Amino acid sequence: MPELRKDPVTGTWVVIATERAKRPSDFVKSGEKETDTKKGGFCPFCPGNEKSTPPEVFAFREEGTNPDEEGWSVRVVPNKFAALEPGVAPERHEDSLHETMNGVGAHEVIIETPEHEAAFPELSLEQMVRVVEAWKERYQALSTDKKIRYTQIFRNHGPEAGASLEHPHSQLIATPVVPKTILEELEGVHKYDTNFGKCIYCELLNRELLEETRIVYASAHFVAFCPYASRFPFEIWIIPRQHQEEFGEISSAQIEGLAGILKEITGRLRNTLQDPPYNLVLHTAPYGSDKMYHWHIEILPRLTKVAGFEWGTGFYINPTTPESSAENLR
Amino acid sequence: MPELRKDPVTGTWVVIATERAKRPSDFVKSGEKETDTKKGGFCPFCPGNEKSTPPEVFAFREEGTNPDEEGWSVRVVPNKFAALEPGVAPERHEDSLHETMNGVGAHEVIIETPEHEAAFPELSLEQMVRVVEAWKERYQALSTDKKIRYTQIFRNHGPEAGASLEHPHSQLIATPVVPKTILEELEGVHKYDTNFGKCIYCELLNRELLEETRIVYASAHFVAFCPYASRFPFEIWIIPRQHQEEFGEISSAQIEGLAGILKEITGRLRNTLQDPPYNLVLHTAPYGSDKMYHWHIEILPRLTKVAGFEWGTGFYINPTTPESSAENLR
Repeated sequence: MPELRKDPVTGTWVVIATERAKRPSDFVKSGEKETDTKKGGFCPFCPGNEKSTPPEVFAFREEGTNPDEEGWSVRVVPNKFAALEPGVAPERHEDSLHETMNGVGAHEVIIETPEHEAAFPELSLEQMVRVVEAWKERYQALSTDKKIRYTQIFRNHGPEAGASLEHPHSQLIATPVVPKTILEELEGVHKYDTNFGKCIYCELLNRELLEETRIVYASAHFVAFCPYASRFPFEIWIIPRQHQEEFGEISSAQIEGLAGILKEITGRLRNTLQDPPYNLVLHTAPYGSDKMYHWHIEILPRLTKVAGFEWGTGFYINPTTPESSAENLR
Repeated sequence: MPELRKDPVTGTWVVIATERAKRPSDFVKSGEKETDTKKGGFCPFCPGNEKSTPPEVFAFREEGTNPDEEGWSVRVVPNKFAALEPGVAPERHEDSLHETMNGVGAHEVIIETPEHEAAFPELSLEQMVRVVEAWKERYQALSTDKKIRYTQIFRNHGPEAGASLEHPHSQLIATPVVPKTILEELEGVHKYDTNFGKCIYCELLNRELLEETRIVYASAHFVAFCPYASRFPFEIWIIPRQHQEEFGEISSAQIEGLAGILKEITGRLRNTLQDPPYNLVLHTAPYGSDKMYHWHIEILPRLTKVAGFEWGTGFYINPTTPESSAENLR
């Protein structure tokens, strides 16, 4: 089973997915590999092929249809090549240098539509609502597992963004430790709250609405903007107007709002940049956290390469101002 | 001129390179762009084309030859599209949310050989020594500029690793703030020293030499190994055996040793993985730091895609154990 290892200097966690262990020849020219398409091939996410995935854990289905058969509109299944696995007892070992855990957690795929060729922004609002509802459903279901501390929901679009199957899908990975990025953000929020007695994300939102120059789209429940210190060209954050710590607290009205703004924003990206590759990542408070946070979504288009300078320093070079990105997307 | 902006939550710095501001159309299909090759084209780094780069700031040259003419073996020039620029007074502005600086610093290219087609591992040992000496020369020269806090030396190999020119070269970017990644590492070293009264990198080295399973190559002055919590397949760290805080302290004997192990390790990567793309990054203490550190080099092959999960969490999924990577490279 997969193994978690922690870097002793920086605290970065790594999943060593030994099950999928690869030989050097597997990596040769891997950079040129294209997304597997249906062309002449087989798509495990298409209707009719339900038996080729692990059994579904959730689905929206027509009345009278059975699990792992046709008739679904959104279907959630464990990832066949899971980075982390449920149903095992956690084990942790530590010495003065190294910390390791077994790969307890979950790795699931949210198949967003039965239609292989559908473009995400062109899903109907009703269908997009179901996708967000499926995210919430699985997010909450996993919260009852006491071994799980955090659930990362994300969407990789395009091969350059790491998508290995073309059929529209998002994923979630639930981890037995709180990830480093979230710890850092919690620390940042805490520091601001200590200094100013306010939520920094609420303040950011107020400032963006006041300055207007980086706003891409604002609706009743959500605001989308290119952040002041955007790491990437056309980076977009979507933040709920209401101060809300955990994604699991999202209301029905907000789900409809999120579905609408996701359609709008991914559609604008698609039109403005001719269907660019991107990673969409949901940031939320860890389960049961008593620390201040404000959940949000970050969309990171993969238009520039992250290279030596970025890897060495954690500094980013962005050849485009967020102000001009926002203007182009408005 | 470029502008530095700091993310208020995480402290991540971004260089907004407004000079190179791009329109959406510049990004379309940018992922498919190949490295500019000499084929039918023009290489600004080849001998005879010295006037097409900014004037050189350092070179090893044949006696009697003039700057910015032929006759050099290694040549260092400012980057024509510099992310940061020298010779300006630093300005810093801060309010309760946003921190910004002008883009003071330096961005230079180390042209490693006059031969356009040369493979880095096949440079002669003598030539590789000159490359490392040029790194040290520029590293130290920039240390005298009081505006500069850190110099990042790095090497991007292959288009997937962000190299935009084929001619062998490395780069350096000198920054007016200490980068986040280095601050984190300094903190990790400090914590270990507080708890155990030892340098964590010295301890890691001892442990690797004792366990042997992750060692790739060990020489008199340096040890190369795949770290226990490797983020990437075939990730390799090269650490000096001697506890040494700053790269600038490297001795002549060590320079020869580093040249030798760089040739060896990049050669093995090239042979084992058929010339994979990689980022090579030098980690060192900031200039004038009084904190414990131990400089080293990290080589990060770009064989897997960094996707939504990694961007969201700072967690990495590595489909290969460092033990098997090391075995394949031995």
